[in-house]
Parts: sequence; C-alpha cells; structure tokens
Amino acid sequence: MVTIDANPASGTRDYLPAEVARREEAFATIRRVFRSHGFDPLDTPAFERLEVLTGKYGEEGDQLIFKILRRGDHEASGQADLALRYDLTVPLARVAARYGSQLPMPFKRYQIAPVWRADRPGKGRFREFYQCDLDVVGSTSPVADASTIAAVVDALAALGLDGCTVQMNHRQALSAMVHAYGIPKEQESDALVALDKLAKIGTDGVAKELSQRGISAAAIEPLMADVGELTASSLSRDMGADTSLVGRIAETEQGRAALADIETVRHLVGDQATSQLVYSPVLARGLTYYTGVVFEVVHDALDVTIAAGGRYDGLIGMFQQEDVPATGGSLGLERILLLLEEQQDAEVAGPDVVVTIVDDEFASAAVAIAERLRTGGLTTDLYAGTGRLGKQLKYADRRAATAAIIVGRGEIEAGTVTVKHLATGDQTTVDASEVVNHVSRLKKDAS
Amino acid sequence: MVTIDANPASGTRDYLPAEVARREEAFATIRRVFRSHGFDPLDTPAFERLEVLTGKYGEEGDQLIFKILRRGDHEASGQADLALRYDLTVPLARVAARYGSQLPMPFKRYQIAPVWRADRPGKGRFREFYQCDLDVVGSTSPVADASTIAAVVDALAALGLDGCTVQMNHRQALSAMVHAYGIPKEQESDALVALDKLAKIGTDGVAKELSQRGISAAAIEPLMADVGELTASSLSRDMGADTSLVGRIAETEQGRAALADIETVRHLVGDQATSQLVYSPVLARGLTYYTGVVFEVVHDALDVTIAAGGRYDGLIGMFQQEDVPATGGSLGLERILLLLEEQQDAEVAGPDVVVTIVDDEFASAAVAIAERLRTGGLTTDLYAGTGRLGKQLKYADRRAATAAIIVGRGEIEAGTVTVKHLATGDQTTVDASEVVNHVSRLKKDAS
Repeated sequence: MVTIDANPASGTRDYLPAEVARREEAFATIRRVFRSHGFDPLDTPAFERLEVLTGKYGEEGDQLIFKILRRGDHEASGQADLALRYDLTVPLARVAARYGSQLPMPFKRYQIAPVWRADRPGKGRFREFYQCDLDVVGSTSPVADASTIAAVVDALAALGLDGCTVQMNHRQALSAMVHAYGIPKEQESDALVALDKLAKIGTDGVAKELSQRGISAAAIEPLMADVGELTASSLSRDMGADTSLVGRIAETEQGRAALADIETVRHLVGDQATSQLVYSPVLARGLTYYTGVVFEVVHDALDVTIAAGGRYDGLIGMFQQEDVPATGGSLGLERILLLLEEQQDAEVAGPDVVVTIVDDEFASAAVAIAERLRTGGLTTDLYAGTGRLGKQLKYADRRAATAAIIVGRGEIEAGTVTVKHLATGDQTTVDASEVVNHVSRLKKDAS
Repeated sequence: MVTIDANPASGTRDYLPAEVARREEAFATIRRVFRSHGFDPLDTPAFERLEVLTGKYGEEGDQLIFKILRRGDHEASGQADLALRYDLTVPLARVAARYGSQLPMPFKRYQIAPVWRADRPGKGRFREFYQCDLDVVGSTSPVADASTIAAVVDALAALGLDGCTVQMNHRQALSAMVHAYGIPKEQESDALVALDKLAKIGTDGVAKELSQRGISAAAIEPLMADVGELTASSLSRDMGADTSLVGRIAETEQGRAALADIETVRHLVGDQATSQLVYSPVLARGLTYYTGVVFEVVHDALDVTIAAGGRYDGLIGMFQQEDVPATGGSLGLERILLLLEEQQDAEVAGPDVVVTIVDDEFASAAVAIAERLRTGGLTTDLYAGTGRLGKQLKYADRRAATAAIIVGRGEIEAGTVTVKHLATGDQTTVDASEVVNHVSRLKKDAS
C-alpha cells in the first residue's frame, strides 16, 4: 500500500464539528439579519466557463485563478475550459445579465460562499475561503447605499462585534480633493494609491510616495499639511467640515455634490448606524472600480477592518450592453470568524445527552429511552460503539454532553433510568417517564 | 465589447432567491434532525490533492473527476495537481486518517455539500450537485447501522416525505443465497449484478442476464423460481421467513448470521422506523464495497429511491494501515428537493413588508418606520430604487410582501402611516406606534 499524505491540500482546511457549528451559527445570524433587511439569497456554481472570469481581475488576479483541465479526449491538450469562482461579484454580474427581467429591480441579494485563489498560502491566508457579499443592483438611489451599510452594521452587531466605526468617503470627493490641490487628472489614481496608505505609513511616508510617483512638490506640501491637521484632529462625526482639507474639497462643484451625497446616505442608514458613521476624507479603498460612496467598518478596540464596500456603477454591466448601477458591501468573514473564536469559550456544542448501552441484551430499552429523549426535544446520542460502560461514559464526557443515561437490568425491571450528571458525577435514578424533565433541568442549570 | 454567454457552465445551476430559500430550509431541517440523533457536522475543502482521489472510483469514475491545472510556471505543463471533490466518502476517510485520535470514537458525522462529476449533463443529471451523507466510523456494533437508518427515516419524515419503506438486506445474506443455489464464489458478483436489476428487468430479464454471464442453468432455474415466488408474495415485514428463498439462505451458517444481524438492526432502529422496515432478500445495492447490512428507502407513492446506505468495513481505512469499520447512509438530496418542490406551492418567501419612499423629502421618515418594523421582528425591505410610488407598489407585489407602507407628508404630520394590504388592496391609516401590530396581524391572517 502506498501511504498518502492525509492533510488537506495546501491552503485549504478541514472543519471539524465544533468549528463547523461555530461557522454555521455565524452564517445563520448574518443570513437572518440580511433577510430582515429585505436582501435575498443567491447561489451560483463553484466554477464558471473560463472566459467568464479571465480579464476581470487584472493581470495579477488572472494568475491566481484556479483553472480546470478539459476532460476526456481533450485532457491531453493540457488546456482549461472552466475555472473556480474567484469572487462573488462577477457571478452576480453574470446573473444580472442572464435573469435580468426575472429579478425584482432593484435586486437586493446576498451570497455567502467559498471562493478560490491560488495565492501563496500563509498565516491567515487561504486558497479556499468564504466571502459574504450583499449588493443592491439596478439603483442609483442613496437609499441603496444606505441599505447596504445599515444591513452590514446590523449584522456585525448581531454577531456580537459591537463598537465599530463606519468610515465613509466618496470617490468623487477624492477626485475633487486631488484636483483642489492642483494635481492633474492623469495623476489622480497615483495620488490616491499613495493616500490610501496613510494609516500604514503616516504623512511622511505618503509625502515621500507622492513625490516618487511624480506629483509636484507644490501640490504635496499644502495637501500633506492639511492631511496632517486632519489626522491630528482625529476623524469627526460632523463630517470634518471645519478642517482646511474639507474646505478645499467644498470649493468645487464636484466636491460639494459628493459631500452632500455622503450627508444624505448618513441620514438614511437609520439611527443606530448613523451614530457610528464618520466622514473620513482620505479613505480611498484600494479598489479602483468604486464610483460613489465608499465605506470601511473598523472594529475600534481591535483596530481592524471587518467590512467594507461602496458604489461601483461600472462593473455589474460587464456582460451587458449598458452600465448597471450597483452598490454593495462585503463582510471580512474569515477575519470575523477568527475574532468570534477568540471571544468565545472554546466550548464544543455536543449533544444534550448520551444514552449508553450497558449490554446487548438491554439495547432495545436504551433505544426506547433515546427516542423518548429526542421526542422531548433533547439532542440525543445513542452510543453506537462496542466499548464497555466505562468507555461509554468517557465518550459522553468527550462529547461534552450534559448527562449520560444508564439503563441496566435493575432499571428496566423498575421502570426507571439512571442519569449521570457529567459535570458533577452525580447519579440519580428517576422514573423513565421523568427522564426528559430531569435532563432538561440539568441542561438548563448548566447554561 | 465581446458578448459573453451569460448562462452558468454546462451542467451547473444558478439558484435564484426562492430556490435558495427552499434548499436552505430543507438543509436546515436535515441538520436539525441529524444533530438530534447525535451526528456532528464535518466540512472538507472543495478540492483535494489529485492522488487522494485517483484510483478510488474505478476506471469509469476516474474519467469523471474534474482536475485542476497546475499554476504559474507549471501551467504550461498541462498537468493537474488538484481535483474537485467527487464524493463525501473519500474526504471522510482522509479526515479519519488525519485526525483519528482527535475525534470521538465512534465518530458520527454528517456532511451536506456539493460534489462535482464530469458526467454528460442531462435531464436531472448535473455536474455540480449536493450530497448528504451521514456515517458512523469506528464501530462494528449493529447500533451504528440502526442509528444511521433511524436518523435517515426521521429526516425524511421531518421533510414531509412520509410513507416510505426501508428495504433491508445484508451483503452476507446475498453471498449465502448465491452459494445456496450452487453458484461458485467466483461468479458471485456477476450473479449479484444481474439480480440487482430485478425491479428494472423482471425475473425473465434477470434469468437471461445470469445466463449471459455464464451462470449454469442448473443454478438459474431453482433460484429464479424462488425469486418469482418472493416477488409474487410481495415484500414481507416478517422477514420473508416463510419463502423458499429465505429457507435456502437460512440453511447456511453465513446466511443465519446475516439474517440474525438484520433482525437485530430492525429492533434497534426505534418503533417509528421499525414499522417501515421490510426485509428484501434480493436487494443488492449496486456498489460492491458493502460488507454488511444494506438498505434503500423507497417513497411508496412515487416508487423512487430517496435514500440508501449500508455497512462498508473495507473503505474508510484506505489511508491507514488497517481496516476501519463504518456504516452510513446518503439522502438522494437532489431528487428529494425536486419532490419537495413539486409538493409545495411555488410560493416565494418574500419580505413581510416593503416600505416605500414617496419622495426624497420623506426618506428619513421611511427609514425610521423601516427600523421600527424590523425591530418589531418583521423582515422589512426598504425600497432602494428610484421608481415612483406606482412602481414601488408593483415591486412590493413582485416581492410577495404582505403589506406596503406609505409615508407621505400627511402621514408624517399626523404621526401615522398608511398600510396597503397587498392581497386585497385595502389601505388603512394607523398610528405609527401601531404599525408593527397591524402588519403582524395581516401577516398572521395570511398564513
């Protein structure tokens, strides 16, 4: 026999029961909140025809697409015709093109699903990971932007990740800002790439990078002075209107419109989310496809970004003859799951009760008690192995059950069962008709 | 612009909201039942290293594996190093080998997940489809066999698929039968392949195929006479003990042991499932890897198999130095979902209520009402488009909501909202503080 490595493929993970339970619980919470906001679930296949995906993620992204070899006689060609889903946005664009008139418009959907990228695996970086997107397709209304932000904020709160700040900005306010400091249009994206690194490399670092990217010193100096004033005064909930930077943005028509847009969205997210919003004038969000409002949700205590999004009116129409307005957000699901894991006790959600089988002879009686417990609403694991009673009780411990049930000859003759409370080791013999109540009480006391 | 086909890849499906909702509801029901029986969830990656999968599914199966091209500099080689999951059993065997001592033994797990096979797509045959497996790994006890059958029967009932018969047999009873009619050991699998087609091709067809496969006429004649008697008397819940066929099986040691095993399992599945079990002496279950009890759940009214399984002690140890006993079952999930779809109304699970936005001016008031409804436990879709009121009410209809909310100047000034009951068209103006109660009542009346 050839021994085969039993590890999952590089960059992928097996999820053992406790972890699946934790992940599914988080997914269920998110689904519930998104649905309560009127977003509907969508699901698409794991793979797409290769041409659907190529050319959508830039040259670097294309390199990271997992391609599927042609089959049968074509396998020898060494060519691919299919590829694994790389994100959830391109499939959404395909669905919008394919089913357009069958979908309500605007189309509010969410999708929680794995994507695959052939990145070099590393700490916290996987080749198979879940994304969680919600988007409103087909609307230019600021209500659409506000709806996604409100649902994201609500979902994070429901997950127990309170204490978040939503930093908001607007792609057109960024344009206006760059323009206001005399940086020419063709250097705009260069300037924004550098500014986006502010939190990472500080004002000096940004100034240096702007210079390296060929921005004139005449623009850099006043811009960075105003940026410095802004960061010193910290982000403000009154839209930073009193800072020089925002003053300059507001000098242009484009800037004023963008600022008004941000203000409108802020008033449409609902009271809860409004209180968490701040205007963050240099937030650029790496991706160049944003066209309007952008946002990033930062967990204050941990200082990590756990959700982000914005309006991207040029993307969803990629498979159609026309642009389709869209706005959306994405939860940083893998990071969120990690935070939740750290916050929670490492408690395994085992069955409520394990029913032991003292001897083959008494197996039918054990089955009957197990059925009774299950009918009574308790998750009931009937021991299915061949170990003796001691081993069965160890198994019950291992399964983190509240109680183990023992049904031997004495119990059967007396119409009773023995309930072992696993946390204390106490054994109580109760009438068989009382077993559901008894175990339910132990379970309630434990929680 | 190159126009790209917006269909999903051949053999795959997009699931629009109503369908996702239906599928997720079925999955949730199955999970709940499996968990109530003490089975735990497991999840494994979509792809495995190629060598984990190849050679496990026979020559024909190997042809149907989706292989993933190597990446980067190796892409030009045209070779594959990874492959998409083909079933859920091989990943389980890998997990058992990898995490053995970390898992409780016996390990009772379920997995509901897509698998991929490069079959020629056809009606009801897909390249991406879900499997739903539950297995008990590491136990030879008949309680393990009974546990899987009980959980399967319970799950089908919870899904509303009542009226099923569980046909049971035993691999060793089949061996004993073949032997009892004088068919030599080396022709056993030939004989079983032919017998497995009984339901499809009838006794004459089976007799013909047995003959074509080189079984001697001296064996075929008495065997098929007894099989004919059996099918004429229909399947029997008292284990067919009175038929000639079972009499012959019981003449051998091996046959008696197998029959006793079936009887034991039948008494361990619990009262509910016991009443649905029948012994089916010629049930062979195509797969050759079964070693003990086998079963097939047939929906009586529809006469289709919707679940199946059995004991397979030789398979889970494939990545280890030793055999690992295992027994399990699989729901025919795609077929079940199709049956459920036919049974159910094609009702879309829309939001409870759509809040319209009469005019931008009143948007904040609409947001506040939406928040109030949502806090009151109603799924609330705030209209996020730019259409006028008429279009918004059409949208609400389309979303199959119970009610639409209208908040205009009059309402805001009076502290009221207008509720349009979409089924009747009735409009009622209620105090804003009463809106949750009012809509909840409409929703309750509708259900």
